[in-house]
Amino acid sequence: MRNLDETTITQAVIARHAKTTNRRLKTVMTSLVRHLHGFAREVDLTEAEWVAGIEFLTAVGHTCSPTRQEFILLSDTLGLSTLVAAQNHRKPVGCTEATVFGPFHVEGSPERPLGADVANGAEGEPCFVRGSIRGLAGEPVAGAVIEVWQADAKGLYDVQYEAFDEHRARATLRSAPDGGYHFLGIVATPYPIPHDGPVGQLLDALNRHPWRPAHLHFRISAPGYETLVTHVFRDGDPYLDSDAVFGVRSSLVADWVHHEGGPAPDGRMLDTPFSTLDFDFVLNPARKEG
Amino acid sequence: MRNLDETTITQAVIARHAKTTNRRLKTVMTSLVRHLHGFAREVDLTEAEWVAGIEFLTAVGHTCSPTRQEFILLSDTLGLSTLVAAQNHRKPVGCTEATVFGPFHVEGSPERPLGADVANGAEGEPCFVRGSIRGLAGEPVAGAVIEVWQADAKGLYDVQYEAFDEHRARATLRSAPDGGYHFLGIVATPYPIPHDGPVGQLLDALNRHPWRPAHLHFRISAPGYETLVTHVFRDGDPYLDSDAVFGVRSSLVADWVHHEGGPAPDGRMLDTPFSTLDFDFVLNPARKEG
Ligand SMILES: [Cu+2]
Ligand SMILES: [Fe+3]
Ligand SMILES: [Fe+3]
Repeated sequence: MRNLDETTITQAVIARHAKTTNRRLKTVMTSLVRHLHGFAREVDLTEAEWVAGIEFLTAVGHTCSPTRQEFILLSDTLGLSTLVAAQNHRKPVGCTEATVFGPFHVEGSPERPLGADVANGAEGEPCFVRGSIRGLAGEPVAGAVIEVWQADAKGLYDVQYEAFDEHRARATLRSAPDGGYHFLGIVATPYPIPHDGPVGQLLDALNRHPWRPAHLHFRISAPGYETLVTHVFRDGDPYLDSDAVFGVRSSLVADWVHHEGGPAPDGRMLDTPFSTLDFDFVLNPARKEG
Repeated sequence: MRNLDETTITQAVIARHAKTTNRRLKTVMTSLVRHLHGFAREVDLTEAEWVAGIEFLTAVGHTCSPTRQEFILLSDTLGLSTLVAAQNHRKPVGCTEATVFGPFHVEGSPERPLGADVANGAEGEPCFVRGSIRGLAGEPVAGAVIEVWQADAKGLYDVQYEAFDEHRARATLRSAPDGGYHFLGIVATPYPIPHDGPVGQLLDALNRHPWRPAHLHFRISAPGYETLVTHVFRDGDPYLDSDAVFGVRSSLVADWVHHEGGPAPDGRMLDTPFSTLDFDFVLNPARKEG
């Protein structure tokens, strides 16, 4: 294996994996090497561009911290996340559609009872969120683990604050025996993805804006069902057709109803504005393990 | 741009760059998105694999430091560096071939006079290196900037030592008026690329070894000529046919001649073993600027 040139190098790298025992890894790396080389060959990548690429990836890595995932932002903005979500969730009609996971999920957010004030001090107009979790045949899914997370009125998630001490606008709930759920959140607003790092510079250079339409994140899991990672978007948002991360699905756009005050869903009489959002989820049966 | 699925997402991302004013960036990103998506689609990448990929790239980024470039190691081990070097240096027959740059070059290494002891204390059998720098027509290239760098007998470059204080086995020389050069280095030995990080883990998982055949790095630049980045390899090395970074070219393999002692090229009579290496370089004329 000497004297490899631009036409023989790809096959030589692939041949080097002849003794790889992990068959799936071998398949993935063979394809990765082919497409990576295909890219470099197609654009006749220069050495200066290769250096710029190495420096860009290094900067992306150095921007990653326990509360910031710049590589997920990169994947999201290049549409890779939407592609992966789509091809992993080919669902029967009638199931709630999935969308991108995003970089702001936190494992193990605090468990709250149904009806709790999940906002927990996060800035924003109160929003009473309620609905049901069901299966395809309409059967209620009791005890489903419902994780919710959302940005505040400033467009920031709790973990983006330097003085982050406790979770706000983020919690874990469980559906009721009839599959119902409800909690008090806040009205979602559009926000720019973090754009003070290398991914923001790339978007700038591409003349792309970093905005996402207003949304509320859900991850819902229950035994016997495929875990659902999705958002509920807000109808009328100016960024619904140009989401920086390509995640909008029509079936996930809902009416967030504004009220100037009056009787709230929790029985109280409010003299300040609030919103209500109703959204029902339909889970896909779990795939049989192969 | 809603409801993007696995078949429509790629074109949607590319369309998002319609207003990109940097035409080369647009070309590069269009190709990158196509091949990245092509890869994910071809292997039907799962979400768990996507997460593993994000975590791997993050670890690669976190391993990069001022003296360690893990993304270059990744590029080298995937054959991308060899591909980029090859397609950027299509040279006329007779020119010295280029090979990979590697992660251990340091800008601005100390200038030394011809004949200097470049080893500067680096462990290894002394090796008298000499030769000439010429152009394609045989014309001597005077005053060429010759950067040399090599690993020591332990297989480590100076910058890999925690207690790194001054450059060893690394220097910048200038060719003589007749194009000649000579210096005192050390005999190169095979070494493993740094494999205590994520790239090493990947090689392990692929059942690949991390070894490079013994070599001495050169970067030679002179006005009117294409800068040459290359190595001189050592004949007889056990890794010449399985270089972890795919860099070996037959024309770069040379005889490193061992002497048990006796008259050295610098005129001294030595009673300890030393080696000699003769290697002549032929530079390509610079490309006309487009
Ligand atoms: Cu491809
Ligand atoms: Fe979000
Ligand atoms: Fe090296």
